[in-house]
Amino acid sequence: MSQSFILSIDAMGGDDAPDIVIQGLEYYLKGDGSGHDVRFIIHGNEIQLNPLLDKAPLTKARSEIVHTELEITSDMKPSHAVRRGKGTSMWNAIETVKSKTASVAVSAGNTGALMGISKLQLRTKTGVQRPALAAAWPQLDGMCVVLDVGANVECDAAQLSEFAVMGEAYYRALFHKKKPSVGLLNVGTEELKGNAIIKAAHERLSNSELGLNYIGYVESDDISFGEVDVVVTDGFTGNIALKTAEGTAKLVREFLRKSLRATLWAKFTTFLNMAAFKQLKKRLDPNRVNGAVFLGLKGIVIKSHGGTDAIGFANAVGIGVELAESNFLSEVERTLDALHDEDDNIGFIL
Amino acid sequence: MSQSFILSIDAMGGDDAPDIVIQGLEYYLKGDGSGHDVRFIIHGNEIQLNPLLDKAPLTKARSEIVHTELEITSDMKPSHAVRRGKGTSMWNAIETVKSKTASVAVSAGNTGALMGISKLQLRTKTGVQRPALAAAWPQLDGMCVVLDVGANVECDAAQLSEFAVMGEAYYRALFHKKKPSVGLLNVGTEELKGNAIIKAAHERLSNSELGLNYIGYVESDDISFGEVDVVVTDGFTGNIALKTAEGTAKLVREFLRKSLRATLWAKFTTFLNMAAFKQLKKRLDPNRVNGAVFLGLKGIVIKSHGGTDAIGFANAVGIGVELAESNFLSEVERTLDALHDEDDNIGFIL
Repeated sequence: MSQSFILSIDAMGGDDAPDIVIQGLEYYLKGDGSGHDVRFIIHGNEIQLNPLLDKAPLTKARSEIVHTELEITSDMKPSHAVRRGKGTSMWNAIETVKSKTASVAVSAGNTGALMGISKLQLRTKTGVQRPALAAAWPQLDGMCVVLDVGANVECDAAQLSEFAVMGEAYYRALFHKKKPSVGLLNVGTEELKGNAIIKAAHERLSNSELGLNYIGYVESDDISFGEVDVVVTDGFTGNIALKTAEGTAKLVREFLRKSLRATLWAKFTTFLNMAAFKQLKKRLDPNRVNGAVFLGLKGIVIKSHGGTDAIGFANAVGIGVELAESNFLSEVERTLDALHDEDDNIGFIL
Repeated sequence: MSQSFILSIDAMGGDDAPDIVIQGLEYYLKGDGSGHDVRFIIHGNEIQLNPLLDKAPLTKARSEIVHTELEITSDMKPSHAVRRGKGTSMWNAIETVKSKTASVAVSAGNTGALMGISKLQLRTKTGVQRPALAAAWPQLDGMCVVLDVGANVECDAAQLSEFAVMGEAYYRALFHKKKPSVGLLNVGTEELKGNAIIKAAHERLSNSELGLNYIGYVESDDISFGEVDVVVTDGFTGNIALKTAEGTAKLVREFLRKSLRATLWAKFTTFLNMAAFKQLKKRLDPNRVNGAVFLGLKGIVIKSHGGTDAIGFANAVGIGVELAESNFLSEVERTLDALHDEDDNIGFIL
């Protein structure tokens, strides 16, 4: 069995773990995963996991449990988790990737802890200070990737340039597009255009000969509607944008729900139109885009939303399998090396 | 006639000016403005304006035109507009507020130019470096105000504190709430919480004895769903959040439109359910929240969205009248003075 198709699963992370984790694996194997030769190493409490696996026969047939009673809680400080996390399901899930027993780890647990433990165990690629968190974002026709969405609150221009090449490699691996476009998130008005860091990153990416399809500045309404595939920004701004989008989508759904239940007639005709609303619900389902990836690590770690359901967890697993089967890690390595070589040659100091 | 009820209107700013401007004034007078004793000084080209006013009898009866053939274009650089803008409809509209002939100016023109010309003519209040742009934002039940949404790309903690007191005074004037809550926009994860500037502003506002209802950090999904009335942030982040929300709302509308037209049956039942969709459309109408205010100037300037329609322009005019009738300017003055006094006393230096 090829080593590259083993996924290491933290079964105890997330609001409804371990139930939604096992259900998510089963959902994946029944659906998108049915054609993939994938196996799972599941880290968690076997007393809780065994009855769940009995109800998930496809998963049971392809899994082994690595038992632990320890887990990282959602409110644990990342620094504490890094110091005291040894032996927890999250720690063990990452360790299994470190030892190359599995090629990808997936966790719906505490983001900061996952980041810290991943960084400690897997280390970052040469020249990368901290990993970036890349999220998929729905567009009218397709998807775009936004990074960083929260791992690095303050970034310099060198980091933003790294995000550009890592995000581009990620997009290629996940969506199989040869030349994804890369944009730098900025504000619109001419004279206000960005601060010194953004301008320096823009300069850097504009002058690069790495062959990136860099299209320059984009605005945040372009994330949903523009022609851009990869949106580069610092973790503060990316996190604000991501949560603003989540909040707005939820608000619009609530307005819709209220309008459709305002009268008996509205309820009745909405019932008649159920197929259209089911399609809409599917389009708006945040689980459809669940699964963010830490970029810049010497290993692949997927972060699922803590509040996800089984379908969302399955989506995160699907991203992990997609990346495991691709040349993603070597491509990130290659493009980062090329960027850093170019930096050395042009004397890029920021 | 009371001087406080004259509004100075830049009729030539915005994508569909002057048509939507005059139609917007008429719409306002027919609706929300019917009970208000308000008059307009309309700045623009009388050859274009007179035929429009003939079709807008309520407006015609309450307006005088100050003719000019000059105007600020939407692509003019703010610095150029400030140097060469004299005699344009926008310039004259602000000048009418400066001379105290009118108490509020409204323009749908170039934001940077409006900011520059307003600052040059009206000047900022003592201690305020640059005005902030405050936007209204729909919540599930009510509205919140977000500032700055684009005027100040980089802000220090002293500016963020000023935004807090100015935004609070603005909220009180516009929504007649005695103790609006004020939050500072930040990212979520515990250890990532903000940069040094945000932390210093948080410290400053937490220790204030000005009587603000300061509730601490809020996240960007709280803007739509939280219990917060006034959200304080720098102009870069605020602009990103605003445009992300606009893009997301538009995306969801498109998804809805597609789902409802996917089949003949969907089209038919949607038609039957028209009342509900009309209600939804009204709720989602971006014009409902049109009209941002420059805070920190010695005068009131309302910026309408350049792409607005007549209803949106009417909304911006309504905000102007609401502020003109309130003690908004003196309240901003009073709270700013109190803040600066407190800064002096506690030796707040950043």
